[in-house]
Amino acid sequence: MYNLKIDYAEGAHPAILDKLLETNFIQQNGYGSDEYTLEAQSILRSKINKPAAEIYFVSGGTQANLLVISALLRPHEAVISASTGHIYANETGAIEATGHKVIPIESKDGKITSTQIEQTLAQFQLRPHVVKPKVVYISNTTEFGTIYSESELQGISDCCKSNGLTLFMDGARLGHALTATNNDLTLEKIANLVDVFYIGATKNGALFGEAIIFSNPLCAVDFDYNLKQKGALLAKGRVLGIQFLSLFQDDLYFKLAKEANEMAMKLARACKDRGFTFLVEPMSNQIFPILPLSLIQRLQERFDFYVWRPINAEFAAVRLITSWTTDELMLDVFISMLEEE
Amino acid sequence: MYNLKIDYAEGAHPAILDKLLETNFIQQNGYGSDEYTLEAQSILRSKINKPAAEIYFVSGGTQANLLVISALLRPHEAVISASTGHIYANETGAIEATGHKVIPIESKDGKITSTQIEQTLAQFQLRPHVVKPKVVYISNTTEFGTIYSESELQGISDCCKSNGLTLFMDGARLGHALTATNNDLTLEKIANLVDVFYIGATKNGALFGEAIIFSNPLCAVDFDYNLKQKGALLAKGRVLGIQFLSLFQDDLYFKLAKEANEMAMKLARACKDRGFTFLVEPMSNQIFPILPLSLIQRLQERFDFYVWRPINAEFAAVRLITSWTTDELMLDVFISMLEEE
Amino acid sequence: MYNLKIDYAEGAHPAILDKLLETNFIQQNGYGSDEYTLEAQSILRSKINKPAAEIYFVSGGTQANLLVISALLRPHEAVISASTGHIYANETGAIEATGHKVIPIESKDGKITSTQIEQTLAQFQLRPHVVKPKVVYISNTTEFGTIYSESELQGISDCCKSNGLTLFMDGARLGHALTATNNDLTLEKIANLVDVFYIGATKNGALFGEAIIFSNPLCAVDFDYNLKQKGALLAKGRVLGIQFLSLFQDDLYFKLAKEANEMAMKLARACKDRGFTFLVEPMSNQIFPILPLSLIQRLQERFDFYVWRPINAEFAAVRLITSWTTDELMLDVFISMLEEE
Amino acid sequence: MYNLKIDYAEGAHPAILDKLLETNFIQQNGYGSDEYTLEAQSILRSKINKPAAEIYFVSGGTQANLLVISALLRPHEAVISASTGHIYANETGAIEATGHKVIPIESKDGKITSTQIEQTLAQFQLRPHVVKPKVVYISNTTEFGTIYSESELQGISDCCKSNGLTLFMDGARLGHALTATNNDLTLEKIANLVDVFYIGATKNGALFGEAIIFSNPLCAVDFDYNLKQKGALLAKGRVLGIQFLSLFQDDLYFKLAKEANEMAMKLARACKDRGFTFLVEPMSNQIFPILPLSLIQRLQERFDFYVWRPINAEFAAVRLITSWTTDELMLDVFISMLEEE
Repeated sequence: MYNLKIDYAEGAHPAILDKLLETNFIQQNGYGSDEYTLEAQSILRSKINKPAAEIYFVSGGTQANLLVISALLRPHEAVISASTGHIYANETGAIEATGHKVIPIESKDGKITSTQIEQTLAQFQLRPHVVKPKVVYISNTTEFGTIYSESELQGISDCCKSNGLTLFMDGARLGHALTATNNDLTLEKIANLVDVFYIGATKNGALFGEAIIFSNPLCAVDFDYNLKQKGALLAKGRVLGIQFLSLFQDDLYFKLAKEANEMAMKLARACKDRGFTFLVEPMSNQIFPILPLSLIQRLQERFDFYVWRPINAEFAAVRLITSWTTDELMLDVFISMLEEE
Repeated sequence: MYNLKIDYAEGAHPAILDKLLETNFIQQNGYGSDEYTLEAQSILRSKINKPAAEIYFVSGGTQANLLVISALLRPHEAVISASTGHIYANETGAIEATGHKVIPIESKDGKITSTQIEQTLAQFQLRPHVVKPKVVYISNTTEFGTIYSESELQGISDCCKSNGLTLFMDGARLGHALTATNNDLTLEKIANLVDVFYIGATKNGALFGEAIIFSNPLCAVDFDYNLKQKGALLAKGRVLGIQFLSLFQDDLYFKLAKEANEMAMKLARACKDRGFTFLVEPMSNQIFPILPLSLIQRLQERFDFYVWRPINAEFAAVRLITSWTTDELMLDVFISMLEEE
Repeated sequence: MYNLKIDYAEGAHPAILDKLLETNFIQQNGYGSDEYTLEAQSILRSKINKPAAEIYFVSGGTQANLLVISALLRPHEAVISASTGHIYANETGAIEATGHKVIPIESKDGKITSTQIEQTLAQFQLRPHVVKPKVVYISNTTEFGTIYSESELQGISDCCKSNGLTLFMDGARLGHALTATNNDLTLEKIANLVDVFYIGATKNGALFGEAIIFSNPLCAVDFDYNLKQKGALLAKGRVLGIQFLSLFQDDLYFKLAKEANEMAMKLARACKDRGFTFLVEPMSNQIFPILPLSLIQRLQERFDFYVWRPINAEFAAVRLITSWTTDELMLDVFISMLEEE
Repeated sequence: MYNLKIDYAEGAHPAILDKLLETNFIQQNGYGSDEYTLEAQSILRSKINKPAAEIYFVSGGTQANLLVISALLRPHEAVISASTGHIYANETGAIEATGHKVIPIESKDGKITSTQIEQTLAQFQLRPHVVKPKVVYISNTTEFGTIYSESELQGISDCCKSNGLTLFMDGARLGHALTATNNDLTLEKIANLVDVFYIGATKNGALFGEAIIFSNPLCAVDFDYNLKQKGALLAKGRVLGIQFLSLFQDDLYFKLAKEANEMAMKLARACKDRGFTFLVEPMSNQIFPILPLSLIQRLQERFDFYVWRPINAEFAAVRLITSWTTDELMLDVFISMLEEE
């Protein structure tokens, strides 16, 4: 069985393991004040052209989300998210466990619009009987593999600024977003448009790790305390620093994401060639083709993937996901099985 | 400057890095259902002779503490801890952030007694105006490097059983406790006397990692949800599984802890030989000699360590800590500086 | 301006004020162990024919909801509610502030069905990445003035039992539900079908007060602690006891609710006679007629009420609410204005 | 059995009940926007000479404490309190349930000093491994009936200002403090020295009620949301407004407190005359004489009071508490029993 179900089925890019070995016995300070972390932070600050940005490395996406959102909200405040957003749908109430409501905005493709945000604000006016929306959470790529364009993000950013909202982007797959075919965003543009975002490495080359970037440093006040309180502060912070250093000193991060996207696009083209449609237009390393149930059944004998949603009596949407480690030969097998149908 | 300040200044034991490299491209399931995790769990269950024990691997001690305690308590319930306990003194209110009071018991050496637990219960009788003590937290080794004897732990365990309390042992440095000179406990004995404990690897050979062991599986019901909710569930759980597999398949874990203790005992003997006393009797890899201020100042030119507490106008207690990576040659330098005094 | 906006615009039924005066200088124990509270609890236990029921009196509906739900859930568990439910829509994130997600079920009339509950359970299977539904919250009357029939409640109750869910009924307007025209439920039937419910008096005769009734006493274990912890334990519990004693020793509670319903039904009939339709079929003391905007504007010169929702360019739904104090003469004025239209 | 155990054994001052009756059928807005609340707020603002002060009325002391403290703290911040403080000792972890640690300062008489606050700050420097002290909580009178002098409060206030701390005074028995013999504080002076305080009426004339006064209005931003979220917003806010209006329009509040203090001083003088000492010097309506066990036993046949703490084999401290309703004839009985000893 070959994995097309998750993009974290293997370990790390060898450059990371090499760096771990090479630095292993060099004594370093704990808790993220090691030299690798400092250097990785410096590289990232320079890439976004924000010398005052505050940067923290943590272990995973749910952790990053709950840390950031709980730090940004007062008790009566809430976060707005797409109904498909990871914090609303797939994090076991992590945000609510910190005391805050997640306000869902209905979404078909994982994205939300500034208009929807305005409508939500209009619905939450009956003060003090309703929570006060304060943070907007978006993900890029979204949970459906879609991406935000610069103009869409600009619209959301403007809406947030004019309404006193803080904008937070979940970038668990930000590399895949920024190397997608139609993408016109960059790290620097994102840093200018959002208050805080993170760059996910768990799904793009690292053993684990997300780089939380407060491009608006006012949002980062006392964040170090929150990290410790929520159990997110690694004693050997070097392990995170080394990984981000390896991924960003030569843009390996973007190279890997691009490879993952290309693998997915190859699969997508094969599906299209065969006449299959998609639940959502394929853009990055997650694609959702709608396939005949009989084909799905045969594919499942060789490949592991999610059957996402039944479409009708004969078809279902599946999720296929690729990564920097995806074996093109296995994709060829998959494609040949498509063609047999 | 040589580090005697923390026992997490270096990376991992090479066996772990080798195993990471060796397994790197083997596809595995996510979230702790990989084969390395399963095998490591199986080895640990067999070491404690509890086939029904539930085992989870997490990234750090504060994370382990808040996960376990929040899972064991209802909202009005509280945890008892030594006033020196990590959860009371050094975790930025991590337990309180999950909604629970930590009830301190005054301690000089990091340990508490069954008598003190009974006294605490007697003080919390004015129901419903006080919290209900429900969990007892102890650490072994303690934050002062001291250890519990079997009879002491038996006493605490009996007290907990007869009072309906759940007993939880923080084993961030459990390896050092179980290889200390006067220790008469074992993993198996501990598993029989406590409901849940963890084996810390961050400070003994791993990049990071603590193995939470519910020897009483009733305490583990639905614990997987809590892991995800608190941001503690690594996508690539294999990274934790591989580390515990490497440390426990050949008892490397205990070998490393023993080495760390021996380094500390060498330092302790040198201090004693020179006539210095200790804040707390040295037992494991943390020792607290009371040294002249002038000597401390000279030592600080070559070594990094905590000055723990002023004793009088001329003396202060310091904390010296060793690990499996401590360089004996550097200890010899330290000792020669002691002798120059 | 006459109030048809809220059913808590006046004080208490005079019988309550009389009893407060009469008992004022009799010394009593604090915190709900006074003789009036004990007697009121005894009367209520007998009315539901559950001698083992546990009963607590609190000050308001949001308080009752957060107390009960936070006591029933472990950290990873969640409560299911209609999207129109008070806990989802109108309590400023009170449940989330105790750490728990409220899972909304889409509802047009304030009610949910056992089928919808089953569907929700089916959607929350991806353990441990989703919360675990554990409590079902329903309100009766609902936020739209609708009521549950015995067979509907039986269906929900059966669904909960077979799925290990706890059933909780918000009875902020339970008197109005049980005296509605088509109602076939009783306090005793409800006590048999739900685990816990409360009887609201704030909106039916009292200065304030809700009686939380754990007909399933297993759900009440240690609830007294929770009351104190959440700031809900009145020092002079007698104030609550006296109110419930006054309302229930002679069924004054039901008499007052019936009067409120009759006033609303009079308004509803007048609207129907005039040819107006309703957002939701009128059943109890809240009705939602759809009126012309011009009429609404004229009515607003004499009456205070909520314009609930625009329907089209010419019509909007309004909410009219009556209580035991509603002045029938003022309703006649209102009705005559309807007829002028 | 006559009550000297609690100062909330009776109902309300008749002036309050009269006002409830008199206003009962006048329609008012809900949730604290009624005219009685507005008038009471206006009177209190004028008494403290702070036109911009924000004032909220709530039901009880624990509720007031948790509302204020949770509104003032970010997640990693903590509140400093005397170890005898109500929030540390007697509120079932209410503050911790909102996510925050209460840092105890050892106290014998219920008071803390600016020096102790400075020492505490010095102990919480190991950022980010410790919570950040942010609010100082004091009670006046304290839980031992002692009071703060103006110079003591000035010292604490200065210390808070120079350290960026917010100062909060629990005034559950503020009336008793401000009418105590040696008191030199006033409402206005307090309003100038603290950021927020409350005036307790539950124990001084009301059925229930505490007036939270933000003399520093910056601390009150969005406080209304918090009130609703924590279940503290009464639908019929008029009930609170009427009580504070009755107590403060003619300074009835201070008259009642003075009477309570005089009753306690009469008891204290009798104890002193008989040669008994005190656990804490008597100052207000709570006194703690040290009496022979044999006398205590005889007194317990006629009077209900707390035996506070054993002193030695023959003596124990008791707590005697008086209120505005205490019957002087019963005190004479008590005193005559003292003299029989």
